[in-house]
Amino acid sequence: MCAEGGIHEIEPRSGVAFTLDRGDRLTVIDPRGEQVADLLAFNRHDLDEVISSGRTLDYASRIYLTTGDPLYSNRSNVLLRIVEDTVGRHDFLLTPCSSDTFRIIYGDAHPHRGCFGNLAAALQPYGIAPDRIPVAFNCFMNVPVDAATGALRVEPPLSRAGDHISFVAERDLVIGLTACSALQSNNGRFKPIHYRIERGEGRTQPA
Amino acid sequence: MCAEGGIHEIEPRSGVAFTLDRGDRLTVIDPRGEQVADLLAFNRHDLDEVISSGRTLDYASRIYLTTGDPLYSNRSNVLLRIVEDTVGRHDFLLTPCSSDTFRIIYGDAHPHRGCFGNLAAALQPYGIAPDRIPVAFNCFMNVPVDAATGALRVEPPLSRAGDHISFVAERDLVIGLTACSALQSNNGRFKPIHYRIERGEGRTQPA
Repeated sequence: MCAEGGIHEIEPRSGVAFTLDRGDRLTVIDPRGEQVADLLAFNRHDLDEVISSGRTLDYASRIYLTTGDPLYSNRSNVLLRIVEDTVGRHDFLLTPCSSDTFRIIYGDAHPHRGCFGNLAAALQPYGIAPDRIPVAFNCFMNVPVDAATGALRVEPPLSRAGDHISFVAERDLVIGLTACSALQSNNGRFKPIHYRIERGEGRTQPA
Repeated sequence: MCAEGGIHEIEPRSGVAFTLDRGDRLTVIDPRGEQVADLLAFNRHDLDEVISSGRTLDYASRIYLTTGDPLYSNRSNVLLRIVEDTVGRHDFLLTPCSSDTFRIIYGDAHPHRGCFGNLAAALQPYGIAPDRIPVAFNCFMNVPVDAATGALRVEPPLSRAGDHISFVAERDLVIGLTACSALQSNNGRFKPIHYRIERGEGRTQPA
């Protein structure tokens, strides 16, 4: 679905995949507030290269990333760089919610496929298997950590309606992106996510 | 190298791989103190299944794991369970140090291949490619996190000579294990790691 001004909408509890070229700018928007979007990025020319929380957090020496921070791959190349961020709190510790998440954490008898299932389905046409899905960069997800005990809590996002985070692609990429499906992550309400792609300078092809 | 009492030694800045059967107990020992050991576990019968920091931390609701905690796979199955731990501080946020780590963080012109290179070499005979190496469970690694800023620091391990952590295999596994190669992680000195395997009940074959 493409709304006005080149804004694409991801419906509640669903996900999409698309490509970016090096230099393209991706803006992920929380249109209503308190809604998480799980983001994955793969090197489009070698799908075994994917964003790595472990490399990125190690090089940043920080678990919370914001404007200026690169997202490194498992091969220590920069795939995306955060260039604008109106929220300043995102998560890069936890994997996309899945039917197992809902079974294990929520005790659901008939669990939703979650962001994991949505990403797996969206990425399948690009030849990316479910086992290749790593820890996602979870835009707007608010996971405070207790320094003494290491306990983590999933709290309501700090994002308000219209807040956004923008990335520039430093490689040609396949992107997976969701409107997150976990009640706790989104303060109990499932909302859409919007995104916009601005093509890099000197390029004329449409999104 | 196999020392007395079924103790195997991993030389400083090196790594090994071996198999465990379901029910086997693996004890990782820090023989001199303040030495990290990066641990990986793969499902031996389907190598695309591997330990997942993101799943494990999500289900534990904690970044620091200890006795009783399971290590989940990317498919939400328990691969290993911690059954004894004399230290209580380990890391599951950061990827194995690599030549890129030493280049990016330490500025080394001719970097060591690190735990990543050691694990890749040790796992290669089992058919596990370098791109399949995820965030490791870093035994004895001490990574405090500042709750307010998210800043993380790599501090000297809390382990003293003879401290150990034991795991029971809940699947047939391929294990990768190192004596970590990063100066900062090991308080500036590279030391060996010891490990011991006790075969599960009712089994008689040697290690």
